[in-house]
Amino acid sequence: MEGALSPPGQTETEALGEKSLRAGYRLACQAKPMGDVKVYIPPESLTTAQRLQVEAKETVTSRLAPAVTLADLHLKPPGLHDLRADTTRLKDKLVEMGLPTARVEFPLLAGLSDQLRQHNWAVRLAIRQGEIVGILPQEGRLLGLAVDVGTTKLAGYLVDLDSGETLAQAGMMNPQIAYGEDVISRIAYVINEDDGTRAMQQTITEAIDSLAAQLCREAHADPSNIVDMVAVGNTAMHHLLAGLPVRQLGLAPYVPAVSEPLDVRAHHLDLDLAPGAYVYLPPNIAGYVGADHVAMLLASGVHEAGEPTLALDIGTNTEVTLAASSRLITCSTASGPAFEGAHIRDGMRAAPGAIERVHISGAEVQYHTIQHAPPIGICGSGILDGVAEMVRVGAIDRRGVLQEDHWSVVKRDSRYAFVLAPASATGHGRDVVVTRSDINEIQLAKAAIRAGTEILLEEAGIQADEVQKVIVAGAFGTYLDIDSAIRVGMLPDLPRHRFRQVGNAAGAGARQMLVSAESRHIAAEIAERVEYVELTVHPLFSAEFLKQMYL
Amino acid sequence: MEGALSPPGQTETEALGEKSLRAGYRLACQAKPMGDVKVYIPPESLTTAQRLQVEAKETVTSRLAPAVTLADLHLKPPGLHDLRADTTRLKDKLVEMGLPTARVEFPLLAGLSDQLRQHNWAVRLAIRQGEIVGILPQEGRLLGLAVDVGTTKLAGYLVDLDSGETLAQAGMMNPQIAYGEDVISRIAYVINEDDGTRAMQQTITEAIDSLAAQLCREAHADPSNIVDMVAVGNTAMHHLLAGLPVRQLGLAPYVPAVSEPLDVRAHHLDLDLAPGAYVYLPPNIAGYVGADHVAMLLASGVHEAGEPTLALDIGTNTEVTLAASSRLITCSTASGPAFEGAHIRDGMRAAPGAIERVHISGAEVQYHTIQHAPPIGICGSGILDGVAEMVRVGAIDRRGVLQEDHWSVVKRDSRYAFVLAPASATGHGRDVVVTRSDINEIQLAKAAIRAGTEILLEEAGIQADEVQKVIVAGAFGTYLDIDSAIRVGMLPDLPRHRFRQVGNAAGAGARQMLVSAESRHIAAEIAERVEYVELTVHPLFSAEFLKQMYL
Repeated sequence: MEGALSPPGQTETEALGEKSLRAGYRLACQAKPMGDVKVYIPPESLTTAQRLQVEAKETVTSRLAPAVTLADLHLKPPGLHDLRADTTRLKDKLVEMGLPTARVEFPLLAGLSDQLRQHNWAVRLAIRQGEIVGILPQEGRLLGLAVDVGTTKLAGYLVDLDSGETLAQAGMMNPQIAYGEDVISRIAYVINEDDGTRAMQQTITEAIDSLAAQLCREAHADPSNIVDMVAVGNTAMHHLLAGLPVRQLGLAPYVPAVSEPLDVRAHHLDLDLAPGAYVYLPPNIAGYVGADHVAMLLASGVHEAGEPTLALDIGTNTEVTLAASSRLITCSTASGPAFEGAHIRDGMRAAPGAIERVHISGAEVQYHTIQHAPPIGICGSGILDGVAEMVRVGAIDRRGVLQEDHWSVVKRDSRYAFVLAPASATGHGRDVVVTRSDINEIQLAKAAIRAGTEILLEEAGIQADEVQKVIVAGAFGTYLDIDSAIRVGMLPDLPRHRFRQVGNAAGAGARQMLVSAESRHIAAEIAERVEYVELTVHPLFSAEFLKQMYL
Repeated sequence: MEGALSPPGQTETEALGEKSLRAGYRLACQAKPMGDVKVYIPPESLTTAQRLQVEAKETVTSRLAPAVTLADLHLKPPGLHDLRADTTRLKDKLVEMGLPTARVEFPLLAGLSDQLRQHNWAVRLAIRQGEIVGILPQEGRLLGLAVDVGTTKLAGYLVDLDSGETLAQAGMMNPQIAYGEDVISRIAYVINEDDGTRAMQQTITEAIDSLAAQLCREAHADPSNIVDMVAVGNTAMHHLLAGLPVRQLGLAPYVPAVSEPLDVRAHHLDLDLAPGAYVYLPPNIAGYVGADHVAMLLASGVHEAGEPTLALDIGTNTEVTLAASSRLITCSTASGPAFEGAHIRDGMRAAPGAIERVHISGAEVQYHTIQHAPPIGICGSGILDGVAEMVRVGAIDRRGVLQEDHWSVVKRDSRYAFVLAPASATGHGRDVVVTRSDINEIQLAKAAIRAGTEILLEEAGIQADEVQKVIVAGAFGTYLDIDSAIRVGMLPDLPRHRFRQVGNAAGAGARQMLVSAESRHIAAEIAERVEYVELTVHPLFSAEFLKQMYL
């Protein structure tokens, strides 16, 4: 990330390939530092996995009525006195059975004739909106796949479309991270590299294929039985997955190529599911409010809330929706990657050894690390707790300035810092500290989130304390301490019972759209209803943001 | 084709690649014969081109109303106060203009955002059945491509969809010939080779791309302006182009995977046309009666004939349709490749030096060659003339046996033969002769065609002389001498004015479907109406076939 390394030799070129080298990958056993360097170790290279939020809590359930249904057919084989084409034979049979006829389209057509013969003319058809999307053997299971495509991670769910049961679920890192940690650097990659769109798309579709294969292994199933898929993600992930242009997403005024729901053939994305399977991509709302937020609103029932309800998806961009008086008002705030451990001196992702809870008792700093490993850094919930506690004990003032005379504040490299864990206790023998600059990152993040929230309240004409329910979704939202978030001013100070930390509600929404075709219509209605507020041109935003910088 | 050659060395491997070597290609300057060998020189290696029939005569004209229409849009660019997605902006504009809304689907979506910006938000849309299939600059020409995909050759036509005018037309060899001359050997290739379907498809789509590029160069146009395409061919060519399975076409009872009309995305076939363009594939009738025959019936107006009409497409398979009493009865007969010069001792395709006309006057054999070159072989119309003349002058009897005592019959290699051109007059210094075996090939071919015709007359319950019009289509059909065809018994002996040699009527039908969407419905109706007669199980066919073997 910084500093110079020896140029890559033949071993590295052969092992990594030109593409990975250009993306900045090096072999640790070959590259020699030519001075001080800063190295990023990608999460997939860590021996321990990052904690991924896959589960969701308290989500709305919906009636089992998937988009894909099945029909079992026993066909008469062709003969010299019955020369109908294979598709004609199939369609005639459906009509004979009193079922509506169904189209057979590419790419299913390519395998149809061989499959009919292989299954001895007794097949189970998967039919979606009048089109045959899969040909399974008799008794073959009808499966669906829901995927939440996050900038950092993927969460996948394998669902039995016949029972609605989730057969397996798993998370994995989004390998696009090799092209940049945030959406902006990935968009830049696509714009600057020939065939960047294709490379980025292939990276994610290969990951989804491998996730599907893993889930199928767990469930003793085969990916060719996956006849339907729903994928949600932010607008950039949505566009990169679908192979849509992203240049205009990276430049003001940041408009999506497409907002409406899309049915994309899995085959078109090179996904290895049933040959005719579609991927349903729910609508997005704006360049920085994606289908994942729509899915979260759907799963959390925000669209049918009877009382003022606030819903937040906290991440590098935080989407906030306020439901009030039958309105849904949404904004997106650039809260930055601080809560994912980035831009924080000792920040790290939520992996073993990350300090995730901090409590200051008297003159003692108590902390809790993931998997009780010796501390090596701080993750999002830890830094939020830390700052909240520092405010409480007076180690920093409301502007975030460290108080030199406070017992906990020390001088390191001619700068002041707050020591969370001393070198003697840590896994790497160095202090784990919080610096003024770290505190500032948290102030920027929380100010963005809170200012967005206040603008929405202003737009709806209600006061914060009228909000009866606050839904906090996403991985960081699951682990953050509500008291700390209130204390630093990120969330409004409301009775604690009004808060719900719902986990991966976007994933739950995707699953819901998989088992209920009706939910897709509801999701489309949600996206239609949402009034999007563009904060960058809102007259009150700058002032509100500055005000909310105070702790 | 026969015998052993030296194994390919490095030069050949590098020049031709593994794939071509496997397909049997060799470099003439490198491969050494290890004994007697028989070598096939592909037509594309000939320095002179084969005569290709592209033109059509006497075809029905249709109202100009193509499937693709255009709309010129001037869009307001997005801004921070107008954040609609690009597709939403496009659709809203159509509605604002009082036009029906239109879908935007893959793969057009992939380029949409960049194109709108590149054309400064002023674009010409190509719209097909409520879907945007092309985005052109303002004033961009709306083009269509019609292709007749024959087993041996392709004929392509570039059409201005705005005026209906054919801007350019050209023929080229079907490069699939490298995988076998007839459809059976190509089907065998697909069945036996991994990825054979893909290889065969790619071969033909690359040829169509190159044909399109050539036509566009002639017309000073760009293939990206081709927003619609129609392709016709026999059922095997149709399946190979579309990437459909062909195994069941090669095995009894020879059923197509699909009979109904197909709209295939050009992108799906890797064709380099407008990004959203479709290829319309008209319906086929049976495993050996394809969309090219439907197109021929359409272009020749056979479906609306008021009097008994016979229509023949003569080739390796000859399709025959009889229109009588509002019925359309069709059969396919295995007439073999003799008329294309194959299986004939001195047979050749219709290229310069081929004897194409024969007349025996007294004791002199008069002939005419293509481009007046010294004779080197005989093409289809030449051998037909030759046999007809030999019958007339008594050089062969009605069974096809050469009469040893006839002045024209000589003994060559202990077998009797009829010398068309003596060694002294030919281009290669060897006699060009007709053998007993050649005559037999012609007998088989003409017997198949005539027996099929008789079965259709029988089915319709009419006599041959009730037929008022006989339409003979295709390249060979254009050049054959009607008198000779009648004399050998291939065609019924009717007044000559009832015969029409219409040229490439299949290509004309394809063009018609390009400029008139209505014609596509008519073609589908024709295919629906046709009563297909399977000759191999027809009780009268064998006897009729044997009877028709007589000259």
